[in-house]
Amino acid sequence: MSESFDPREFRKALGSFATGVTIITTRAPDGTPLGLTVNSFNSVSLNPPLVLWSLENAALSLPVFREATHWAVHVLASDQEELSGRFARRGGNKFAGLTLEKGLGDVPLLTGCTARFQCRNAFQYEGGDHVIFVGEVQHFDRTDAAPLVFHGGRYAHATRREPGEGKPRRAYMAGSFSEDFLGYLLGRGHFQFFGQLRALLAQEQLDDAEFYLLSTLTLKPVMTHAELNRSLQGIFDGDTIAVLDAMLRRGFVAEAPVVAEAHAPEYGLTEAGKAAALRVISAAKALESEVITRLGAADAQALKALLNRLLTAIDPASPFAGRGEEKVRTTGTGWSE
Amino acid sequence: MSESFDPREFRKALGSFATGVTIITTRAPDGTPLGLTVNSFNSVSLNPPLVLWSLENAALSLPVFREATHWAVHVLASDQEELSGRFARRGGNKFAGLTLEKGLGDVPLLTGCTARFQCRNAFQYEGGDHVIFVGEVQHFDRTDAAPLVFHGGRYAHATRREPGEGKPRRAYMAGSFSEDFLGYLLGRGHFQFFGQLRALLAQEQLDDAEFYLLSTLTLKPVMTHAELNRSLQGIFDGDTIAVLDAMLRRGFVAEAPVVAEAHAPEYGLTEAGKAAALRVISAAKALESEVITRLGAADAQALKALLNRLLTAIDPASPFAGRGEEKVRTTGTGWSE
Repeated sequence: MSESFDPREFRKALGSFATGVTIITTRAPDGTPLGLTVNSFNSVSLNPPLVLWSLENAALSLPVFREATHWAVHVLASDQEELSGRFARRGGNKFAGLTLEKGLGDVPLLTGCTARFQCRNAFQYEGGDHVIFVGEVQHFDRTDAAPLVFHGGRYAHATRREPGEGKPRRAYMAGSFSEDFLGYLLGRGHFQFFGQLRALLAQEQLDDAEFYLLSTLTLKPVMTHAELNRSLQGIFDGDTIAVLDAMLRRGFVAEAPVVAEAHAPEYGLTEAGKAAALRVISAAKALESEVITRLGAADAQALKALLNRLLTAIDPASPFAGRGEEKVRTTGTGWSE
Repeated sequence: MSESFDPREFRKALGSFATGVTIITTRAPDGTPLGLTVNSFNSVSLNPPLVLWSLENAALSLPVFREATHWAVHVLASDQEELSGRFARRGGNKFAGLTLEKGLGDVPLLTGCTARFQCRNAFQYEGGDHVIFVGEVQHFDRTDAAPLVFHGGRYAHATRREPGEGKPRRAYMAGSFSEDFLGYLLGRGHFQFFGQLRALLAQEQLDDAEFYLLSTLTLKPVMTHAELNRSLQGIFDGDTIAVLDAMLRRGFVAEAPVVAEAHAPEYGLTEAGKAAALRVISAAKALESEVITRLGAADAQALKALLNRLLTAIDPASPFAGRGEEKVRTTGTGWSE
């Protein structure tokens, strides 16, 4: 454990408490809508219904919030990260282009949130360099949208835990196999997902490897045999030469005009190859969309992020390793304003 | 959006704001340690360093917290779900068997948490049916452990989002393939994970299908051919008869004594089969442990939960569908006590 009282360390320690992300809005006496991203929100009381949040003494909007009769709390959904960033920055017309509704006390309400609480500005308490605002909830609404989460200075996905998760499920024989084995889950996921795709590929008389080869060739105009091998090595065992030959014979792939004698031959999709590739890719995407809809967009995004991280963990030398690893910009939600 | 002011609906709306989970502890004047699970914690001020949480007026421990000179906030780690449940229930000696440290004001400190804040009991504010406690942080420590998260009345995993996540990565050709395609990520994950296992299987002269057949037979004393087919249908294409035959010939599987004439023949592992199965399973588990260590235990658990959910989404008729779907017991963290 690190121990100190450096303000940065203190912030980091506070950031270890995960929170949702909210935007609090109100309207200034001159009619200007105001709003800011806040993660210091929390519930206080059921009866009367009270919630609270904290605003920095130095915030330009403090005098307006102090005098407002009402303000509204918007609990952001998983797909509102951009909105969170927009309201975390100072200045500019944060409301430009947004669909707004009119709330109690003429407070501007944002749409597409997980929950909204319209509050009477009930109490204000001293809180060091912040003021604690306690509001009486006079109206609320909510949806089942997945939440935006903030943790450790970054946005996060919240994925439901199952009761008993992580506990062994069967134990007939000491040391026996478990259906919770990661390799088994990956195998089943891959097999069942492709089981549905395979019927579509069969219509085009393509197998898995041919599907991947054509798909890979949609990413670049031309590739050498060595490049194709590299691109497919993560998913295909051995040399791609037989697959490439089959696609050349079928007229889906052609050798590109030779640029220089010293270069290895390069291959690209023919018009027929492009058309076939686009048909199967669009079928594959439709299948993916259907699965994502059933799984939920937020869980699907979390699953993809974790699979990418798994690939890096299995093979740190993979071309995918470390991708997207840069730290998120501080958006101000690490503190209440 | 559902609109109403039913208290249950209000609680549900409040629950849409994700939070970490904390345990707040103090010591009664007679020396008794007290603690309770709270998710109404939040940060207030950096300078002076203040944090807050709310406690129900009806809580038995309220008089003690009101008079205490100090209390401590423990931000729980992902693997402390059980501790959260223990301190969310009333009564009993919640501290029994726990390793405790001694904090400021003789407050009992729990170990293994993500962060701890030792606070002077600074202010108490009225908050409807709760009292808002504001503490001045006099000492804190933290680790990088993944947090326990509460959302929508359940525990959740928090999985880091990557910047730019969900945005298309390459677009050489309209409608082209994307490396973010779920089927591709599953294929790569499975292929690369098994790539490492395959070398171990080769030493035992077993292929993937034989590995799964032997593994499945460690789950039950005997299985019929039809049962084996059903068990392996999620991961193996077609009939298992050839695999079963190979394992019978090799003496790893034997037909069980016939129980009744009308029954289909049943198969089980021989001693040699058990020994081989345990060798490869233990190698597979070692490989899995290594990958989990690199990925992080919390992310690995979230990945498994999501893969299980994916299997249900792909095939709602799967034997895995709906498993572990019962709602978690209310632990009291849905409200501050």
